[in-house]
Amino acid sequence: MTQPAQPHIHPIDVILHKRDGLALSDGEIQSFIRAVVDHAAGGQTLPDEVSDAQIAAFLMAIFERGLDHRELAALTTAMRFSGETFDAAPLNTFTVDKHSTGGVGDKTSLLIAPTLAAAGLAHPTPSGIPGICVPMISGRSLGHTGGTLDKLETIPGFNTQLDLTQLLNALKQCGATLIGQTPTIVPADRILYALRDHTGTVESPFLICASIMSKKLAESLNALVLDVKTGSGAFMPTYEKSKFLAELMVRTGEASGTRTVALLTTMDEPLGRFSGNWIEVWECVDIMRGHRHPISADLIELSNTLSGWMLHLAGHADTPQAGAALADEILRTGEAYKAWLKIVAAQDGDTAIFEDPAAFHKPTATRTITAPQSGYLAAMDCKQVGWAVQRLGAGRAKPGDPVSAHAGIEMHAKLGDKLEAGQPLATLFSENPVLLDEPEAMLRETLQINATPPRLHPLIREVISARTS
Amino acid sequence: MTQPAQPHIHPIDVILHKRDGLALSDGEIQSFIRAVVDHAAGGQTLPDEVSDAQIAAFLMAIFERGLDHRELAALTTAMRFSGETFDAAPLNTFTVDKHSTGGVGDKTSLLIAPTLAAAGLAHPTPSGIPGICVPMISGRSLGHTGGTLDKLETIPGFNTQLDLTQLLNALKQCGATLIGQTPTIVPADRILYALRDHTGTVESPFLICASIMSKKLAESLNALVLDVKTGSGAFMPTYEKSKFLAELMVRTGEASGTRTVALLTTMDEPLGRFSGNWIEVWECVDIMRGHRHPISADLIELSNTLSGWMLHLAGHADTPQAGAALADEILRTGEAYKAWLKIVAAQDGDTAIFEDPAAFHKPTATRTITAPQSGYLAAMDCKQVGWAVQRLGAGRAKPGDPVSAHAGIEMHAKLGDKLEAGQPLATLFSENPVLLDEPEAMLRETLQINATPPRLHPLIREVISARTS
Repeated sequence: MTQPAQPHIHPIDVILHKRDGLALSDGEIQSFIRAVVDHAAGGQTLPDEVSDAQIAAFLMAIFERGLDHRELAALTTAMRFSGETFDAAPLNTFTVDKHSTGGVGDKTSLLIAPTLAAAGLAHPTPSGIPGICVPMISGRSLGHTGGTLDKLETIPGFNTQLDLTQLLNALKQCGATLIGQTPTIVPADRILYALRDHTGTVESPFLICASIMSKKLAESLNALVLDVKTGSGAFMPTYEKSKFLAELMVRTGEASGTRTVALLTTMDEPLGRFSGNWIEVWECVDIMRGHRHPISADLIELSNTLSGWMLHLAGHADTPQAGAALADEILRTGEAYKAWLKIVAAQDGDTAIFEDPAAFHKPTATRTITAPQSGYLAAMDCKQVGWAVQRLGAGRAKPGDPVSAHAGIEMHAKLGDKLEAGQPLATLFSENPVLLDEPEAMLRETLQINATPPRLHPLIREVISARTS
Repeated sequence: MTQPAQPHIHPIDVILHKRDGLALSDGEIQSFIRAVVDHAAGGQTLPDEVSDAQIAAFLMAIFERGLDHRELAALTTAMRFSGETFDAAPLNTFTVDKHSTGGVGDKTSLLIAPTLAAAGLAHPTPSGIPGICVPMISGRSLGHTGGTLDKLETIPGFNTQLDLTQLLNALKQCGATLIGQTPTIVPADRILYALRDHTGTVESPFLICASIMSKKLAESLNALVLDVKTGSGAFMPTYEKSKFLAELMVRTGEASGTRTVALLTTMDEPLGRFSGNWIEVWECVDIMRGHRHPISADLIELSNTLSGWMLHLAGHADTPQAGAALADEILRTGEAYKAWLKIVAAQDGDTAIFEDPAAFHKPTATRTITAPQSGYLAAMDCKQVGWAVQRLGAGRAKPGDPVSAHAGIEMHAKLGDKLEAGQPLATLFSENPVLLDEPEAMLRETLQINATPPRLHPLIREVISARTS
């Protein structure tokens, strides 16, 4: 796709139009985003040069005035093509990816990538390439949420920084990768995100949609499954706002020709057993090796549901439900684990440590919280649990901070579980005993035990799909 | 007035609150403005440091969400006290000033300052100080509007750059000054204005009000008369918007204890006979020396009306109408001219040139436009006439550009005048013949002659005053 030059569109006029609530033309949006990237590339003194202050004004005007569907598609497209794009079309395979809006203990990528890879390896294309390819370009921990890259990098030697050629080769060989953003893909998003973060324009659903979808669509996907979190651990504060974002993303994906489905899923407690870095890898390895801990049940259900949708969209299952059953079988038979070992090895990771993952868990400080009284685990502020994980050392308060491989929390109970007084609730891990006290207090404050069982939301609350399937 | 320290208010939180439509506390506003000035003073890395991008986001959030009356008063006060303030209280006189929102050929300051000075000199305080003091801190030409300082600086030797001590001494001696902004007064406005200009946040009535009123209230005035322009040569695009701005300014002035009145006045054609720099001084000197050219009638009416309100508020006239009559008498008797010579001499200007002001007018290129047909001068885009003046060399496109002393336009007819074909309409002056063509075309395009007389607005359309007087 080429973008014709748009002369004589000045950034200030684009700001004025959005400020006054007018719909921006595609040319105005393209021109502004091009100016943003030119600005960051070294500030050539062109007539259409744009300053940080102008970008901030543009972002705030969008925050206040919103974007219509055409504008949002145009912004997403302009950002998508602001740098290099990845295209697996030469492989003649089906390219599908998953994206989550971020949660606590959310390690589904570590199960979904090998599950889909196993399905793709089992059904190669006529030229011998896996029939499904999953680029799975992921992010890092920030704030109360974990990041797939931080988890993967606890595996000795694991390399998350592949360039686009390496990515294509890894997909040819394994059918899936687990890698980080390359610096060349969607540079506009890095510039806009850094400014959004300190100008109070992070929470705009339009800007969130453009940020997520530009990066995913830059992978030139045939299909995309979105896991949009809702609940006390989600970024979006209400169910309605999560649903609004999900609808924007589905519409934006479909508008660019990528089959897009969003699942609204409950994030009222950490997903699965562990929240941290290595301990999350451990939990997934356990599952892929056939050990299903009862506390991991919600993780397995969500992973299989998301994998099921991806398998269905890729044509490997007639329905999403059949796809989920297939995903569960791939996990149970060890096919996913074989694909996992192949992916890790292809990215230079040491697979030997998966033989005894518990032995690789080396926190230097551990503390277990028990139930102060009998009753039902009724509620928690899941975001506060996420912040406790971060304060233990597993997360980061700002980009670039180091993270601890072994810090984190193990949950011993799920919401709705009946507890006896003194029964273990959660275990905290840290690499520094001093870091245990504040997270312990945060957990004690937020974990509520009531005499009556709570009413809970189902894990999958709603599926947003532009077409019935 | 002291401003207590406001710890723990971070700029980002102030942006978030305004972005979401919440009313900001006085402390939040003070804290943000203090951070703006600190930032400009050298960017100390304090917890509350603020970036240009954050200031831009703050300005756009105010543009979109507005300010309530308390917030606007707080913003104006925070800006007012962001640097040094001037206070004539030691003189024990009545301090009054006038401000105009800017127009074409608007030279009322050059008549009002000497008129008020003459009244003040005639009625000194018990300690011998003029009974009225008019600081008259003015600005420069920008865009389609003229600037008092550019006009004054055509007088050889005239010094508009007095510091606050020199200002106090000049007021003691003359009762009025005609000077420019000092760099120490309201530094916050300079920072905010520079950012507003390129982030699309100039036209917010709240930000315009805070900018104007912070600078005027920093003169510690007893009373202020505002000339808010409306019509095709005004900055505000509709009568309603001019009136809204006038009401904001009156309310903000009164809230800080300054008696404030706003006149909504018509700017549908250049005010008076000349629009330019020296030629506007010439027109005023002519009037003060008793020569009343018929084309100057609207200028004299507006100046006397504004002076009349100032004299009335200062207690020198029972009504604004009586004040206007007194002002007219002061002009006619030559008292204003005497005060004018005193003011100019006190600011190092060469008063000898006023003996023959026409002789000092030395354009190198002149062209007269005549009426292409008979009829009534019915309409013009006054802003376009202002731009023609600017293109002739009399104004500036951007701050810092030089201006020509002798360029400009003389109008030979007013709106509503009956014209014969071939009768002179306007004469263009420039210091470079090449510069005549475009302004001539602009005037020819905009000056409309119709067969029937136009319906015109009265010069004074409405008076906005918080109290009846």
